[in-house]
Amino acid sequence: MNVEFVNPFLDAIMNVLTTMAQSEAQADKPYLKEDCLAQGEVTGMIGLAGDRVKGSLAITFTTPAILHITSQMLGEELTEIDETVKDLVGEITNMVSGGAKKALSEKGYKFEMAIPTTITGKSHTITHKTLGAVVVVPFEMDSGKFFVEVCFED
Amino acid sequence: MNVEFVNPFLDAIMNVLTTMAQSEAQADKPYLKEDCLAQGEVTGMIGLAGDRVKGSLAITFTTPAILHITSQMLGEELTEIDETVKDLVGEITNMVSGGAKKALSEKGYKFEMAIPTTITGKSHTITHKTLGAVVVVPFEMDSGKFFVEVCFED
Repeated sequence: MNVEFVNPFLDAIMNVLTTMAQSEAQADKPYLKEDCLAQGEVTGMIGLAGDRVKGSLAITFTTPAILHITSQMLGEELTEIDETVKDLVGEITNMVSGGAKKALSEKGYKFEMAIPTTITGKSHTITHKTLGAVVVVPFEMDSGKFFVEVCFED
Repeated sequence: MNVEFVNPFLDAIMNVLTTMAQSEAQADKPYLKEDCLAQGEVTGMIGLAGDRVKGSLAITFTTPAILHITSQMLGEELTEIDETVKDLVGEITNMVSGGAKKALSEKGYKFEMAIPTTITGKSHTITHKTLGAVVVVPFEMDSGKFFVEVCFED
């Protein structure tokens, strides 16, 4: 997988957090995914498909991180992973891939976005069936961690 | 959602089961999805995206059903949800959406397929963020049940 695919997703998540949730996150060192255990309790996922490229984006949030982000987005305190939170996770995933889509389109990589899906459950596992690598970028916020997974086939 | 989107997926799964796993399944009455709890332990999911349509397909298998199907596919008895089974769930999901893609393309609905993903975990929930309906079709086999979920926006 071409590494120039990954950065637009990272830029987009930071942009979404800043503008929608008045929150900042620090990206940690990326790594290639080897095991499949989601390191959080809520995952937003979206498929990306074009003539030449196909891939998927998954963002896995720990509970404290997503409760902080969604509380900030709504301006009210949320204390559990309810339908509102799941809906916002789908919305965040959509916005992040939308931002990356725009940036990648300018580089000549055109794709359309599928429908975002939210997965919850303690110790759920997520396995992308791809010929390429799965790059994971951990993010740290004061309130907790989240993980961005990008896989792309060119 | 136009109901003509759903049938090609059902035809495709039956075709895959017959040809790849020498197995038959009986479709039960479809219903609209209201809650989000996956009624199985393993889900294969794939995003579908085109200029005019976008959607997602999820196939959730109970453990006995998928162990039967994958054992049939490989010609050896599988007894737990391991990497081999997860990989085959991704493969089945890919083949089903590939079959439906062909049939729908002939009706003028063109889309590309994203990368298939396998989710495991007891009581995982799957929520499609869609403006349209999510249609669920339960299937019954001698060995157990599985559920096909299709959502599409036109």
